Amino acid sequence: MYRSHTNGELRLENVNQEVTLSGWVQKVRDKGFMIWVDLRDRYGITQLIFDEERSSKMLMQQAKMLGREFVIQIKGNVIERTSKNPNISTGEIEILVSELTVLNESKVPPFTIEDETDGGDELRMKYRYLDIRRNPVRENLIFRSKVTMEVRNYLSNEGFIDVETPYLIKSTPEGARDFVVPSRMNEGQFYALPQSPQTFKQLLMVGGMDKYFQIVKCFRDEDLRADRQPEFTQIDCEMAFVEQEDILNAFEGLTRHLLKEIKGVEIGDFPRMTYDEAMKIYGNDKPDIRFDMKFRHLTPKSGTYGFSVFDDAELVVGINVKGCATYTRKQIDKLVDWVKRPQIGATGLIWIKFNADGTLSSSVNKFFDADALKYFAEQMKAAPGDLMLVMAGNTDKTRTQLSALRMEMAETLGLRKPDEFAPLWVVDFPLLEWDEETGRYHAMHHPFTSPKPEDISLLDSDPGKVRANAYDMVLNGNEIGGGSIRIFDKKMQSRMFDLLGFTKEEAQNQFGFLMNAFEYGAPPHGGIAFGLDRLVAIMGGQETIRDFIAFPKNNSGRDVMIDAPSNIDKMQLEELNLKLDL
Amino acid sequence: MYRSHTNGELRLENVNQEVTLSGWVQKVRDKGFMIWVDLRDRYGITQLIFDEERSSKMLMQQAKMLGREFVIQIKGNVIERTSKNPNISTGEIEILVSELTVLNESKVPPFTIEDETDGGDELRMKYRYLDIRRNPVRENLIFRSKVTMEVRNYLSNEGFIDVETPYLIKSTPEGARDFVVPSRMNEGQFYALPQSPQTFKQLLMVGGMDKYFQIVKCFRDEDLRADRQPEFTQIDCEMAFVEQEDILNAFEGLTRHLLKEIKGVEIGDFPRMTYDEAMKIYGNDKPDIRFDMKFRHLTPKSGTYGFSVFDDAELVVGINVKGCATYTRKQIDKLVDWVKRPQIGATGLIWIKFNADGTLSSSVNKFFDADALKYFAEQMKAAPGDLMLVMAGNTDKTRTQLSALRMEMAETLGLRKPDEFAPLWVVDFPLLEWDEETGRYHAMHHPFTSPKPEDISLLDSDPGKVRANAYDMVLNGNEIGGGSIRIFDKKMQSRMFDLLGFTKEEAQNQFGFLMNAFEYGAPPHGGIAFGLDRLVAIMGGQETIRDFIAFPKNNSGRDVMIDAPSNIDKMQLEELNLKLDL
Repeated sequence: MYRSHTNGELRLENVNQEVTLSGWVQKVRDKGFMIWVDLRDRYGITQLIFDEERSSKMLMQQAKMLGREFVIQIKGNVIERTSKNPNISTGEIEILVSELTVLNESKVPPFTIEDETDGGDELRMKYRYLDIRRNPVRENLIFRSKVTMEVRNYLSNEGFIDVETPYLIKSTPEGARDFVVPSRMNEGQFYALPQSPQTFKQLLMVGGMDKYFQIVKCFRDEDLRADRQPEFTQIDCEMAFVEQEDILNAFEGLTRHLLKEIKGVEIGDFPRMTYDEAMKIYGNDKPDIRFDMKFRHLTPKSGTYGFSVFDDAELVVGINVKGCATYTRKQIDKLVDWVKRPQIGATGLIWIKFNADGTLSSSVNKFFDADALKYFAEQMKAAPGDLMLVMAGNTDKTRTQLSALRMEMAETLGLRKPDEFAPLWVVDFPLLEWDEETGRYHAMHHPFTSPKPEDISLLDSDPGKVRANAYDMVLNGNEIGGGSIRIFDKKMQSRMFDLLGFTKEEAQNQFGFLMNAFEYGAPPHGGIAFGLDRLVAIMGGQETIRDFIAFPKNNSGRDVMIDAPSNIDKMQLEELNLKLDL
Repeated sequence: MYRSHTNGELRLENVNQEVTLSGWVQKVRDKGFMIWVDLRDRYGITQLIFDEERSSKMLMQQAKMLGREFVIQIKGNVIERTSKNPNISTGEIEILVSELTVLNESKVPPFTIEDETDGGDELRMKYRYLDIRRNPVRENLIFRSKVTMEVRNYLSNEGFIDVETPYLIKSTPEGARDFVVPSRMNEGQFYALPQSPQTFKQLLMVGGMDKYFQIVKCFRDEDLRADRQPEFTQIDCEMAFVEQEDILNAFEGLTRHLLKEIKGVEIGDFPRMTYDEAMKIYGNDKPDIRFDMKFRHLTPKSGTYGFSVFDDAELVVGINVKGCATYTRKQIDKLVDWVKRPQIGATGLIWIKFNADGTLSSSVNKFFDADALKYFAEQMKAAPGDLMLVMAGNTDKTRTQLSALRMEMAETLGLRKPDEFAPLWVVDFPLLEWDEETGRYHAMHHPFTSPKPEDISLLDSDPGKVRANAYDMVLNGNEIGGGSIRIFDKKMQSRMFDLLGFTKEEAQNQFGFLMNAFEYGAPPHGGIAFGLDRLVAIMGGQETIRDFIAFPKNNSGRDVMIDAPSNIDKMQLEELNLKLDL
């Protein structure tokens, strides 16, 4: 037996007990005649004490040999500390050690195993097993485990069945790029790793499973943007005999439960917003509504603005930044530079200050008199002390740019509070989006999403206008989940594939099994999938998913710890009937 | 809203309520003036009634059009049945339908959606979504979900953390064949899909996670034997600061909990048996101990047997089949034929009957007199009425053959009761096994298994004799879990790789990250992995794992429903820098 207690367990009431502890040496303080060792494990830290008067010479010598991260086992007596440490759970006691065994030595770690480490990202990833010893990383992983347990228990209690769907499936060139897996037994053929269990969960509904969930790995071979992973985890759900309202209620329930159980935050009914509203008011479909700063549209007092930048623009829109009229020229210039960065790509930024004394000044004083500015201020609901930031131009671009600025201002002003949670539903997404590059429509959600019945008549006349029974759950400015009511009728599914530019043959070849299934009594159904990595990161008050993944990959899709991917044996390639073609 | 209740929910107390139900048409009984429809969903069956006197003509007509597996929604009034059906939960009521909507029609299914179906295996797999509508298949999947929830909750309550390990890892030619995944971003390189998260869970222990579990998919590209799947699911666990005893206790606890919660079976302490004992007494390392029929070794009364088959044999061993002395010549011939089949490969079978009248007869009367036979009977603890079946020859082969016969006899005699559960631990497995083909040692469990400290001295002199701290949990004749205490010392790990024939370079290349990790304070650790597919099958009283997997693959590794694997686009291959080489 390596231990009688963990290092987070002993209290005053254990005083005088003989205990056995194991763990890592966090710190050694050697005063010569007295040595203190902090012994660490997942559960906490216990202070060990060795002293000349009470410990044998050999034991003192042994203790002096200890280094950081050595793994040791000790036996000893629990005694009350003279100077207590209220910061740790075992701070009232210490262990007078009578026996010390070094279970394993340690080289000096490449970075300090402390909450704030001196290790950079690369080093931490290479030695991830040491990084995980640090409290913040370990606690993130434990937090993730807690969230998934809550998810499973909640859904299970609601009658959802956890069904495992296959990982070796079929490649479908539609959507993102698949990772493929060559089959040795089926020469020249390939499996694909699932981008999501979409068709399988729909087949489970056809199969009468009624309510399905799974926490499942999904795979996408994309050029990785920051904070994307080639493998990621979804909370994947589907229900039969439901309308959109049933789904929204079911998963609003889940999210409310998680926020309450995990974060102690009580949230009432989630606000709902159409896609169109979200785009209009926040310039994007995943607005952060923890703070206001809504888009305000500026109209001229009469006729035209008399300012060509506005007059020529599709959209003139601004945000009102409360209490920032005191921004200096330098601060404002920084903002202008910020929106002009290639990542944002704006041509400029107009500012109007509603000064504390009631006067108005702006970067467009030349074009607008005090009256005109005042009229803008009214439209923007500005008050003395506020700073108005205005952009104008093409609708889509301007929305995207101002939305980015809105988030940047909120970040700067500390309005994105990590312990505040503001979920909402964005509904009525468009069914299709036009892709300039390929010159055809793409499914905005996926090809299985059903159009709103009242919009079906537009499918032929104006496909871009058709709204879908599709919805996203947004939390603190992040899409954490999305789903739709599915098509469950073969004819409609086939029509959808036509619209998306599939030939009949392609559709049959790739999704024939699903359309066939729809001929044998498919029930109405719909579902949702949550991105678990992001959900736990946001619930944990952070936005970097990598910190909530035990062994993440870097931006080139590499695991630098195990050094994967790597070359494989020639024999392996031969068995798979493959040749490298570099 | 598609339904106010499910089809398993309504009772006498709901009489007179207006309800809305949805589901599949299981059966239509049309008496002309009266039509009954069984409406089915996951939760049960509710009887619908239409009759000339109480239903409109149109409704009667609609009902007459219904076919099997149509998806319908009805509104109606709950009424008390005149002839009740005690076999179903809703058997006291029926619904007098007032409104009927066909949500989706169905072609006639290719097999009947009944508990006993007329569909063969191929057809059921091709239309798995229809197969899942059948009660036995659906109940198996729900049972699996229930088992996994119990596992997770139990382990979670015991302080285990659910950590997801990566699926895109590194190929290691050791062990079974990997499935590989070409990397597009890292030209010419490949990921591998994990055969198990073995090294990652060990690194989590190095990282101080202390107790880890995960229910995780694993992959093996093997030529599939019956009832093997290329992707399978493991309950994967690891603990730090443990000895073998700690692990056995922890997972005996889990298994006991599952048997109690899921099957209502209380099991005391699990028996333990060494590998050597198991081989000696049952001829294999996963004995079914629900029944006795132990191996009994026959020795001659004095000197030699005087029967060359026995005298020349390494092993003379038999089983005593209780109460089967009445077997006819024909029955016994069948057994002899059975052991001579190529799958078993025995050259023959000797039988000795202890007749009810106390006389003994045998197939070797020529060689043994009554006294000799009686002496054998004593050794085999046979009583009047018993049939002794004896085999002789090479130790390994004879054990395997007699073990197969023992299982066959138990099957025939109905001793393998699916509702009886007899778990046991088999411990002290050999560390290494000699592989004739490659002429070197292989790790019996895996290369990370630690030798028993007391056997380390044999590592150089007689490696085959070294026992490992490795254990299997066996349930009803199936290995359901196996694990070991791991090596946590770089030197020992390196020595093990030497023994297994790795060059230093290979070892470093493939497992360098693990050996490096061992230099930074690796704690003692060990673990276990359960085969979930098999565990649920056995707990469900069956032995075919395919019936407990939603979408299994066939023996060629194909999913015949979606038709995977399949050919992929030339462009996909090009992007991966690969060429087919058929």
